[in-house]
Amino acid sequence: MRLIRFGEKFDERPGVLNEQNERLDCSPYFEDWNSAFWANDGMRQLEQLLSENEQELPRVAADARWAAPIARPGKVVCIGKNYQAHANELGEDPPAEPLIFMKAPNATIGPYDTILIPRQSLKTDWEVELGVVIGAEARYLSSPAESRACVAGYLIANDVSEREFQKDHCGQWTKGKSCDTFLPLGPWLLLADALADPQNLELTLDVNGERRQTGNTSDMIFGVDFLIHYLSQFMTLEPGDLICTGTPPGVGLGMDPPQFLQPGDEVRLTVAGLGEQRCQCLQA
Amino acid sequence: MRLIRFGEKFDERPGVLNEQNERLDCSPYFEDWNSAFWANDGMRQLEQLLSENEQELPRVAADARWAAPIARPGKVVCIGKNYQAHANELGEDPPAEPLIFMKAPNATIGPYDTILIPRQSLKTDWEVELGVVIGAEARYLSSPAESRACVAGYLIANDVSEREFQKDHCGQWTKGKSCDTFLPLGPWLLLADALADPQNLELTLDVNGERRQTGNTSDMIFGVDFLIHYLSQFMTLEPGDLICTGTPPGVGLGMDPPQFLQPGDEVRLTVAGLGEQRCQCLQA
Repeated sequence: MRLIRFGEKFDERPGVLNEQNERLDCSPYFEDWNSAFWANDGMRQLEQLLSENEQELPRVAADARWAAPIARPGKVVCIGKNYQAHANELGEDPPAEPLIFMKAPNATIGPYDTILIPRQSLKTDWEVELGVVIGAEARYLSSPAESRACVAGYLIANDVSEREFQKDHCGQWTKGKSCDTFLPLGPWLLLADALADPQNLELTLDVNGERRQTGNTSDMIFGVDFLIHYLSQFMTLEPGDLICTGTPPGVGLGMDPPQFLQPGDEVRLTVAGLGEQRCQCLQA
Repeated sequence: MRLIRFGEKFDERPGVLNEQNERLDCSPYFEDWNSAFWANDGMRQLEQLLSENEQELPRVAADARWAAPIARPGKVVCIGKNYQAHANELGEDPPAEPLIFMKAPNATIGPYDTILIPRQSLKTDWEVELGVVIGAEARYLSSPAESRACVAGYLIANDVSEREFQKDHCGQWTKGKSCDTFLPLGPWLLLADALADPQNLELTLDVNGERRQTGNTSDMIFGVDFLIHYLSQFMTLEPGDLICTGTPPGVGLGMDPPQFLQPGDEVRLTVAGLGEQRCQCLQA
């Protein structure tokens, strides 16, 4: 099953994408695809609704905006340098343990929204990633085998990054990772039970039609199960939290010479089974 | 005016602390001291309620738990090495620009709750800080003079930090900053109009009755107005967000030899006008 959200900012509503690729409005039955939904057995109720009453759900207007497929996450935990070839292109060693940082949850936007290049930005860069949404609390998991039961589903995430803000303004990456609009998500959330193996997904990213990133989640240094187990030793992952699992090679910073996003550029991302994301860039 | 919250975890309610230090229950009138409250002119409604009907507000039961005085923040932005003498004790230069990082919002606990020392922790440390709660959106402010209008109020924050997680596990501080219970807040939020000058507040921190930290917010390298203006160039600060403004000298890592929190220890924090916070430590 694929979850979507639709509607204008601050009036976003939950829906599903059916097998005919029609968007169905679930807002008469559910408040949102948020932490309360995941925590309170919402999935079971949704499955029941769809099996009994799918025909009665209203269709979403064709011109309705596609919103991020999940409500704003409680926290966004990101993994750095999680593909060997990406660490290589930055001239850095891959980390011995997962390198983690956070993005501001309010950087979240929809899959076809506008990426705003921040004022004073010289180096706004792209990063296609597999995003993992938490569906059940993960705290001190005893092994990676316990992780999969904590996953709600998967989506495309663009970990947009301003490299000068990230690296040249006094330590820690936060400044270059949390700018407004720096976290386009979607178009849909593929529920975990619909994806047998998250470690064999092709990822691509194009800028203005030119291929920049190609990778496969099989090349992750630390896979999804390991990451959730690992993170749960440091903090409780809660339903609705998002993990961005790192980017394959091909970011602008790694090009020779480096290239970065300019107003008017279009960024297109795909992850196998998770759809296609397409954002245009504008100056903030 | 001083805002408080009370009640058990997941059933926390908004209240005020009146001039007689009585806790009054505002939950019949307000949902919570959350982003919607700040964004929708809640303060004006609260002032009106208190001026007309304070006598009718129910008293909070004396044994009710003190919760964090604000709802869980949308994001928690922290400033590192913002007191010269603290940078000195770590043997580091003070930063030329504010050094920023994030804590997980779900690390928030109340002012008398238990700090859980994480499993595998060897170096759980303390940091008394002035916390600043945002009351109005701050985005690309044109000068520090515009910052004060974006402040809802001030509170005591303990930026609890695991130094080994923070520094010795592959880059970025997130791992040592976001553990569960690592953000005790309160006891109350002092509203901005009740504090003429946030840059002249004495801060103290004791462990088991021994003074460890002493400082004054006048010694901040970057003051509150500068910080909000600066941060607003990188990300939008939203109503309900929290800024932790950095810690004065006296952390455990800076002691000779270093000392860290142990199960059973009591940490007591004060900031002038913001009350006294007192947390006991237990093993997670």
